[in-house]
Amino acid sequence: MAATTDLVVDLGERSYPIRIGRGLLGCPGLLDEYVPGKQAFIVTNEAVRDRYLDPLLASLPRVDVEYACIGDGEAFKTLDTYATLMDRLVTGGHNRTTAIIGLGGGVIGDIAGFIAATYQRGVAFIQVPTTLLALVDSSVGGKTAVNHPRGKNLIGAFYQPRCVIADIGTLETLPTRELKAGLAEVIKYGVIRDAAFFDWLDDNLDRLLALDATALAHAVATSCRIKAAVVQTDERETGLRAILNFGHTFGHALEALTGYERLLHGEAVAIGMVMAADLSSRWGKLPRADARRIRGLIARAGLPVKPPPVSADAMLEAMGMDKKVVDGRIRLVLTDAIGTAALTDQAPEVAIRETLEAGDALCAE
Amino acid sequence: MAATTDLVVDLGERSYPIRIGRGLLGCPGLLDEYVPGKQAFIVTNEAVRDRYLDPLLASLPRVDVEYACIGDGEAFKTLDTYATLMDRLVTGGHNRTTAIIGLGGGVIGDIAGFIAATYQRGVAFIQVPTTLLALVDSSVGGKTAVNHPRGKNLIGAFYQPRCVIADIGTLETLPTRELKAGLAEVIKYGVIRDAAFFDWLDDNLDRLLALDATALAHAVATSCRIKAAVVQTDERETGLRAILNFGHTFGHALEALTGYERLLHGEAVAIGMVMAADLSSRWGKLPRADARRIRGLIARAGLPVKPPPVSADAMLEAMGMDKKVVDGRIRLVLTDAIGTAALTDQAPEVAIRETLEAGDALCAE
Repeated sequence: MAATTDLVVDLGERSYPIRIGRGLLGCPGLLDEYVPGKQAFIVTNEAVRDRYLDPLLASLPRVDVEYACIGDGEAFKTLDTYATLMDRLVTGGHNRTTAIIGLGGGVIGDIAGFIAATYQRGVAFIQVPTTLLALVDSSVGGKTAVNHPRGKNLIGAFYQPRCVIADIGTLETLPTRELKAGLAEVIKYGVIRDAAFFDWLDDNLDRLLALDATALAHAVATSCRIKAAVVQTDERETGLRAILNFGHTFGHALEALTGYERLLHGEAVAIGMVMAADLSSRWGKLPRADARRIRGLIARAGLPVKPPPVSADAMLEAMGMDKKVVDGRIRLVLTDAIGTAALTDQAPEVAIRETLEAGDALCAE
Repeated sequence: MAATTDLVVDLGERSYPIRIGRGLLGCPGLLDEYVPGKQAFIVTNEAVRDRYLDPLLASLPRVDVEYACIGDGEAFKTLDTYATLMDRLVTGGHNRTTAIIGLGGGVIGDIAGFIAATYQRGVAFIQVPTTLLALVDSSVGGKTAVNHPRGKNLIGAFYQPRCVIADIGTLETLPTRELKAGLAEVIKYGVIRDAAFFDWLDDNLDRLLALDATALAHAVATSCRIKAAVVQTDERETGLRAILNFGHTFGHALEALTGYERLLHGEAVAIGMVMAADLSSRWGKLPRADARRIRGLIARAGLPVKPPPVSADAMLEAMGMDKKVVDGRIRLVLTDAIGTAALTDQAPEVAIRETLEAGDALCAE
């Protein structure tokens, strides 16, 4: 096991540690202090189970463990899957001291967290993210949810884990496409909050793509630290926290319009960030050169920068059901400069429409 | 409108007022400060709608209101009903600033609260209880839930309302059987926490049964105050709060074994309290005379004191799935004296079995 970085997300009585390191899974005693009783229930999927269930069980020697595999992908993050998992918990006789462990990517973490938040009005939750996206996004913030047919994450809760085990060794078996999708969120943290980190990413992108463990650990720790700083200020997203949604209003609409199948979440966010940069620049807030730089880094990470062919009207309608809407106006996170972002409902509709119709000309000269 | 008593449940940033009075519903401006946006969604049932929807709407003049009726009774407090209500919210375009209003008894409050806790990860919740049970029980504590076929309230969340409107005028149209069921919880507060209030109830039971508004307001306010004091100490039920479950472990088992149909919740709790008093006394903790006094007051309130014919084994099994179980031992709330109660897992199994088999001899000489 490599040296670990421990980060604490400071939320008062709901504070918890994120343990970041390579080879954490399998260490005896790893989870002892976070499992309150003698029972645990692991939510995972088949691919992750085959690789990481055994190491995880080795970290849980004194606990009765059951596990459930759910289907892979957003399409399975539904109330139906939720009800099935609840049935398993009840049938298995899990009591209030059980621990729910989410072993997998963002979908697993979201639904396992919502189960933990609502089984017997809340039981212990432990997150073991195995994708870069989950490591840098879902592991901080306490957002749990399932999707509704009409929109992502419309049903859920804020619920903090007892701890997050961020074993960056799991990234070595991650499909390249998913690694890149995770980089979208990593780049986001630079754009919204830390220009120096954006510069570092610009310089070190190749090391990340080559799975350099030191570079990955730095990127994960910095991302989690930035997200933690934002979440600590605004746990329930009444203000600042909204900036974490940079690129997400566009991205969620793209996901919905392509049936949650064509684009990975990180890919949709990548395109969404290019759209948000384009709109910021079109509206005269962000220098065009910075918009191009954002698009450039996203493209170099091997991420899509051009939206699939969906109409502006369809996008506007899909964005209308997004949670960022308050009383009819579309609220978007936009940026004035790399390293800063803010929520606004003032973007002119004509500029929004131009961005939605720009296609491959997003962030162009 | 009669003079109102305002009680504040002090839970830090989650504090909220309970407004207690006769004729509150219909007052203009009643809910203005608690509805954050321009939308509201009322959950109720047909009987309550016919009496109280119009007055409630009169208190919401500047808000777009939708309402949904759900079936009457615990049998409808299910994930299916929950999913249907979620569909209505999404289809109706409710955003994060909507308010969910539970207008009705405990079933309505529980499911409306769980909807509010989990729609878009939590929106404003307002409780308008219209039964005595809901006034003195659900209006303090933030417990929300739906039932699972294998047990009550197994799926839910802790979620505090923005305010509770406790219009005791609604009790005047309440069926007598439901009024009595509510008295079970009122009596419980005396038993577990306030001997003087138990004495007051002993002296004033007839006024309560005759719907004397002053007596009812006093009973409601005192009950809410006792519950608030307990909940403020232990919001998430890690310790003291468990005493509020006095009679409930037995009661829940009785409800489950009779299919949630034969007994009202308050009636099951009434029998459960007689069983808990019997066990407390059988175990040598509570003087037999006090056990008889508890049974006597419950009987005088017109509540059942004898369990339906269910076997001790069936009860033990039903109690095994109850949430009060930790790692295999049955934990029960028992009393040493009227005015005090505590959670214990030390009651001898032989005494528990005697209580379960006592039938009409509960709390007898």
